[in-house]
Amino acid sequence: MMMNETDTKFLRLAYEEALGGYNEGGCPIGSVLAQGDTLIAQGRNQRVQQGDPIAHGEMDCLRKAGRQKSYKGMTLYTSLSPCMMCSGTIIQFGIPRVVIGENVTFGGNEDLLRERGVEVILAQDPDCIALMTKFIEEKPELWNEDIAEE
Amino acid sequence: MMMNETDTKFLRLAYEEALGGYNEGGCPIGSVLAQGDTLIAQGRNQRVQQGDPIAHGEMDCLRKAGRQKSYKGMTLYTSLSPCMMCSGTIIQFGIPRVVIGENVTFGGNEDLLRERGVEVILAQDPDCIALMTKFIEEKPELWNEDIAEE
Repeated sequence: MMMNETDTKFLRLAYEEALGGYNEGGCPIGSVLAQGDTLIAQGRNQRVQQGDPIAHGEMDCLRKAGRQKSYKGMTLYTSLSPCMMCSGTIIQFGIPRVVIGENVTFGGNEDLLRERGVEVILAQDPDCIALMTKFIEEKPELWNEDIAEE
Repeated sequence: MMMNETDTKFLRLAYEEALGGYNEGGCPIGSVLAQGDTLIAQGRNQRVQQGDPIAHGEMDCLRKAGRQKSYKGMTLYTSLSPCMMCSGTIIQFGIPRVVIGENVTFGGNEDLLRERGVEVILAQDPDCIALMTKFIEEKPELWNEDIAEE
């Protein structure tokens, strides 16, 4: 239940997706889908860029991965702890393992994922925390819209 | 907790979206988002049509509705009982009311929705049941892929 070198590499790529989203004026949350060392897809939150409310980072990544017969053996990396939409998707798709950048700025569904048999690894990565903290301070209304808070 | 005339009208529209998806060779599941009598968006499963695994009927509908400040007072209609991805999305977005065409051919998340405060109305509509039954008989592999069964 620890981060390995592959995890470190792909979580960094998820962070870079998040940073790219920040630089586009979007919600800075990025995601990567991989099978072991093999990158399958990478994505980022597209609420602002595409006006798409369902395109959280994880969802955009899964969309870009396209149709899969099975997610067996795959790991989903996400710079931020998955919301209920993304957690429900992880459970529905049968993704067995999730590496989360941080759950300091947002979280709460880790136990649900574990209850449903998903292996959850939490990195508490300082860069992920710093990026989300900066974004939430700068654009609280956009962030609240993204997580449907008022 | 009963269907009203508006519900009947919009659930029929969700069925027509499902039928349109069937006629395109896709998974026949349709959805409508409405605020009272006002249609906000309608959509259908796009797995086959767009090669998009996250575009279940409800998700396609919510995407087409675009960015919303709040889903307060809205009803989501779906021809088929929502999977965990779509149920998680309903909970995350704070959609307060869901009208489900049927849960005979697929279901199981109604209790989770109710536990999280969502009003759930189940129509058991014969046309919705017949369409899904026909589809599952004709294309079991596509259906299993859509719900990530093996």
